[in-house]
Amino acid sequence: MLTPAIILVRPQMGENIGAAARGMRNFGLSEMRLVAPRDGWPNPKAVATASGAGRVLDAARVHGTTAEAIADCHTVYATTARPRDLIKPVLTPEAAMAEARGLIAAGQKVGFLFGPERAGLQNDDLAGAQAIVSVPVDPEFASLNLAQCVLLLAYEWGWGGSDQPAREDPEPATRVEMEKLGDRWEDALDDAGFFFPDEKAASMKLRLRNLWSRMPLASGEVQILHGILRQLVRRRPE
Amino acid sequence: MLTPAIILVRPQMGENIGAAARGMRNFGLSEMRLVAPRDGWPNPKAVATASGAGRVLDAARVHGTTAEAIADCHTVYATTARPRDLIKPVLTPEAAMAEARGLIAAGQKVGFLFGPERAGLQNDDLAGAQAIVSVPVDPEFASLNLAQCVLLLAYEWGWGGSDQPAREDPEPATRVEMEKLGDRWEDALDDAGFFFPDEKAASMKLRLRNLWSRMPLASGEVQILHGILRQLVRRRPE
Repeated sequence: MLTPAIILVRPQMGENIGAAARGMRNFGLSEMRLVAPRDGWPNPKAVATASGAGRVLDAARVHGTTAEAIADCHTVYATTARPRDLIKPVLTPEAAMAEARGLIAAGQKVGFLFGPERAGLQNDDLAGAQAIVSVPVDPEFASLNLAQCVLLLAYEWGWGGSDQPAREDPEPATRVEMEKLGDRWEDALDDAGFFFPDEKAASMKLRLRNLWSRMPLASGEVQILHGILRQLVRRRPE
Repeated sequence: MLTPAIILVRPQMGENIGAAARGMRNFGLSEMRLVAPRDGWPNPKAVATASGAGRVLDAARVHGTTAEAIADCHTVYATTARPRDLIKPVLTPEAAMAEARGLIAAGQKVGFLFGPERAGLQNDDLAGAQAIVSVPVDPEFASLNLAQCVLLLAYEWGWGGSDQPAREDPEPATRVEMEKLGDRWEDALDDAGFFFPDEKAASMKLRLRNLWSRMPLASGEVQILHGILRQLVRRRPE
């Protein structure tokens, strides 16, 4: 699947460009574009920080203006901490990436703009964007840096698109296995005189059944619990 | 609204502790706990990196062991890049934080464990956790650092949290209650010769600890399980 382009507009610190490349690679993004990077290009500090993500930098395209950088994009999102008085929809990173995934699947080229470290995107940069993406930070502490902002957007893209990570849960116990386990423990506890006094036995058994039914046991763990009971009961006198 | 505790286990670099504090503050988290930080505490590098988030560090509690750090928690999530062969559910950050929000609204204390920079969490650290949180990074480039991992989890918490309706669940068991329950059963099973052969005893005990840690028990149910054991063991010959 194609991926969105991450477009850093007039980035200042090479370290942030390198860290952004790492964040992209963590989640399967590979296409970086740079608009007028302050310290020129290539940038040794970016390379040093990117370490394993150097290939993102090697493939980065450099443009003179934001307009040029987004020229081939069908849809452009602009990230900004402080949405300005612009008549554009404001989306969360999650909503924006969900939308982008759909657009890309439909054949569109999608770009995300990130502004320079201090000043952020200017009105000229925003002119070509259809929507604003704003990370919902605490307004009293809204100090995300450039690379962190790229990381969060890349995270919402997710490396596999809509594929969820494979879960490696063990085989869960079936209801029948749980039922049998409950029966065996109930019988053993009956023998041991646990359900006492008689008039409380029914409610105690019900409570224990409820407890078992809520246990998220794997099939192998049911066997452990059978084994435990066997061992505890084995040495009781008849 | 209360917030989850962010628990850094044996963190190495002060810079990462400081950056984690910033990531927490961005999204409204304030409670940090540290387990045996390598360079002692307080740590000047952490303070320098945290800058505006210094109050998170000031309020941080320091513990000697993971077990001590999670003692008052009802539910504990462990973040790990590589889920091990443990029988625990594996959740995305989004799913885990959604669940945590519900548990906290219902009155639970929730903690998230983060391992040291290189080695990650060890089996002993994981023993007290009910579930694993795994960030779905590209397996070919899974190099999230500690502070980035905290940032992503904090992001999923979101600074406002959404107000959840209060649930009327029974009082959940604390980690200390579960720990004591696990101890008593382990001792009794030891006496009964359950952990056999010797060379398998350690892994059998670990497996049983993991089983206990995942049980969503109410405080009253812990008492039932103490009672069951008492009754089963009582009539064994000495």
